[in-house]
Amino acid sequence: MSDFAPVAARLAQSAEANREALFELLRLPSVSADPAHAGDCRAAATWVRDYLANAGCTAELVETGTADAPGQPIVFAKSKPIDGAPTLLIYGHYDVQPPDPLDQWTTPPFEPTVRDGKVYARGATDDKGQMLTHPLALAAWHAAAGGPPVNVTFVIEGEEEVGSDHLDAFLDSHKAELACDAAVISDTSQFAPGVPAICYGLRGITACEVSVTGPKADLHSGLFGGSVANPANALAKLVASLHGSDGRVAVDGFYDDVIPPSDEERAAWGELPFDEAKFLADTGAPSPVTPPGATVLEGQWAWPTCDVNGLTSGYQGPGPKTIVPAKATAKISFRLVPNQDPAKILGAVRRHVEMHSPPGVRVEVKPYHGTPGVRFDTDSAPFDAARRAIEHAFGTAPVMIRGGGSIPVVRSFGELLGCPVLLLGWGQESDGLHSPDEHFSLDAFARGALASARLMWEMAEG
Amino acid sequence: MSDFAPVAARLAQSAEANREALFELLRLPSVSADPAHAGDCRAAATWVRDYLANAGCTAELVETGTADAPGQPIVFAKSKPIDGAPTLLIYGHYDVQPPDPLDQWTTPPFEPTVRDGKVYARGATDDKGQMLTHPLALAAWHAAAGGPPVNVTFVIEGEEEVGSDHLDAFLDSHKAELACDAAVISDTSQFAPGVPAICYGLRGITACEVSVTGPKADLHSGLFGGSVANPANALAKLVASLHGSDGRVAVDGFYDDVIPPSDEERAAWGELPFDEAKFLADTGAPSPVTPPGATVLEGQWAWPTCDVNGLTSGYQGPGPKTIVPAKATAKISFRLVPNQDPAKILGAVRRHVEMHSPPGVRVEVKPYHGTPGVRFDTDSAPFDAARRAIEHAFGTAPVMIRGGGSIPVVRSFGELLGCPVLLLGWGQESDGLHSPDEHFSLDAFARGALASARLMWEMAEG
Repeated sequence: MSDFAPVAARLAQSAEANREALFELLRLPSVSADPAHAGDCRAAATWVRDYLANAGCTAELVETGTADAPGQPIVFAKSKPIDGAPTLLIYGHYDVQPPDPLDQWTTPPFEPTVRDGKVYARGATDDKGQMLTHPLALAAWHAAAGGPPVNVTFVIEGEEEVGSDHLDAFLDSHKAELACDAAVISDTSQFAPGVPAICYGLRGITACEVSVTGPKADLHSGLFGGSVANPANALAKLVASLHGSDGRVAVDGFYDDVIPPSDEERAAWGELPFDEAKFLADTGAPSPVTPPGATVLEGQWAWPTCDVNGLTSGYQGPGPKTIVPAKATAKISFRLVPNQDPAKILGAVRRHVEMHSPPGVRVEVKPYHGTPGVRFDTDSAPFDAARRAIEHAFGTAPVMIRGGGSIPVVRSFGELLGCPVLLLGWGQESDGLHSPDEHFSLDAFARGALASARLMWEMAEG
Repeated sequence: MSDFAPVAARLAQSAEANREALFELLRLPSVSADPAHAGDCRAAATWVRDYLANAGCTAELVETGTADAPGQPIVFAKSKPIDGAPTLLIYGHYDVQPPDPLDQWTTPPFEPTVRDGKVYARGATDDKGQMLTHPLALAAWHAAAGGPPVNVTFVIEGEEEVGSDHLDAFLDSHKAELACDAAVISDTSQFAPGVPAICYGLRGITACEVSVTGPKADLHSGLFGGSVANPANALAKLVASLHGSDGRVAVDGFYDDVIPPSDEERAAWGELPFDEAKFLADTGAPSPVTPPGATVLEGQWAWPTCDVNGLTSGYQGPGPKTIVPAKATAKISFRLVPNQDPAKILGAVRRHVEMHSPPGVRVEVKPYHGTPGVRFDTDSAPFDAARRAIEHAFGTAPVMIRGGGSIPVVRSFGELLGCPVLLLGWGQESDGLHSPDEHFSLDAFARGALASARLMWEMAEG
């Protein structure tokens, strides 16, 4: 049995150096959306590769894309192999969101600054700060014990903020080398301050655009109103028909494959310190509105939705303009729960729209992307190890939560590699991800590194 | 009994000169929307004033607006008073729409050009060509008989294309001087080529903007979908609730004051040469859609509507963006039939929206302008005179029609002056009003002048 104490000690000793390492990485403006920052992205990739190489890994940059349309390189690294030991796959990203609007930052986005125990910089929490906890953990194991007690593989990409276009191809072509017992992603959040969490499920999504066309051009509503169908009125009827008066989605078969949350889950979520007043203050919504009988968290995590994301029709300027618009469109997305099939749901939506199309207009459904939801079995060695590691590092057992969003890479890992994914977020939702004054608690940064190092130990000991 | 033959002869003799007069007026780019053309508007007003003065009227320009915000002058003219004779009030406008897009004109908009018996120019039909028929008629009477056999008052304004902002004040302050037996407006169209018409009714209108707000900013539809009400879905429900499944407006009390078209009207309209294939080709609508049991013309003229004019919410760019929008708005207009009160209808709509507002959002109704519909009694001397005058000039009796639009000035005349309004359009709906290559038939121009002169005679003889 390897001894964890020297690793923890090493992390404590190098706390100052670890922060300096983070600040170095945060100073690189690796904005993947902006071609002008391609060099900075490569510099960040190189920095991560070198850090991992210095921590005892074989580490390389894997180029992506084509010569004509190059992507950002993926950092691919592996610790010294240990036959028979479990393998952890760490995924993260070194690219960041654009820092705009610059004038809303208190200090410049690429000059990391500490205020009140938090480091402020673009990428502080998303995802440089959270991601780096794992290389730090590896470096501590390397320094204290010559290497971690498990096999650790790193896949750190540089296109997460622009759609991870080249990741699936990389995963596919490196499948054998990526085999693992669990993947770890630290790119989400704790449940609340002081309430660390493991996220074991995410919703999926399917989306489409519904277009209703009538006249070939906008018509004078005086001359023609009352003699032609109005596409905007027709679209409203169509959209309205998607929900019943009970608030449930009225698309035939929509709930067929839904597995409701178990009584145990509902009971556990009921124990979570959900703060409704804070929820209302944060969202500005006058009141929560959930599916029949569901709590807010159940509505967000365990039930599918039908949300209009955008409406466009006719005149949108100030004042009145009395026309019958030629066209009306709605962008509609459906969040799905695990076991619902995006293609099947989209088919049901198409049939619903066809059946409910009024006379005098043409209706078209244009599908967008779809991705299924995921839900991992928490009664497994990796989840047990993660629970213990987090309790060790944060001093309190993590709560088990699901998430309402869809993280395609989680699905990719689950599907392409067949491994459970541990979503271990060290940050907070209030950390300003994608916003000015993004920040990350330095205490969470240190505890995250300790949790990562401990997870390697727990996996080896489990 | 005055003799009409010399007047008709005079019009025939001056056909060439009358066209030249029209072309002169068309050369003046009197675009009221463009402050750079203020001088051209005044030149057009002056041209009309001088023409009427030369035809034996006392004629003046009445200034409008204030020193700080001047309006376009109104041409106010009166023929030599004849005690005891009936009085006709001619309304028209000398201002025109902007000519853009210029590159879509075959010949320049302010260089009148004759092709195929039609003059092409901005304002050819709307309204210089149609309006001028009345001064031409007066001039013919002046030349042939020393003046018309009735009193004729002219009110030719220069702000019709920008909302007639100063007209009501002028009518109000000149009420006594404007007393008349009938007002005549030639700013509409014949029913179809070869089918002259008298329009004896118009629909009114009331309009509003309905806004639904929920969260204070667009929310991530994954994190929050299923826990807050979606303003765009809520707006769709609200808009959909405005119509019943039978296609009728479902606002309580909406039809209370509707007087359905009489059996005689329906029978007469049924005889009109309505061309459904042309209607579908012109509008591009897949099929007509009318209130239950109504024909297309009945739907356009005799039933109220509820048309969404515009929808705005959330994301409107290409592709998907999965948000719960903070806000959704619909611009909605209601065409009203005579006897419906715009304020009463708007009140009913407000109550409907309040009653149908779903939980979790705030709903606001912002009223726009309203104007009631009008319907004149066609069993009256002025209508009889106009019927005979048109039959004389066009060789066929006019059909009696209503219009679906709202012309506020008609309401102003009816309300402020208490007179019936004869809408005698000489043009065609296909004349390109407000569009490139606007044109007007020179045959209709001559017949219109003849009809106007004959109307003066018929009013005197009636």
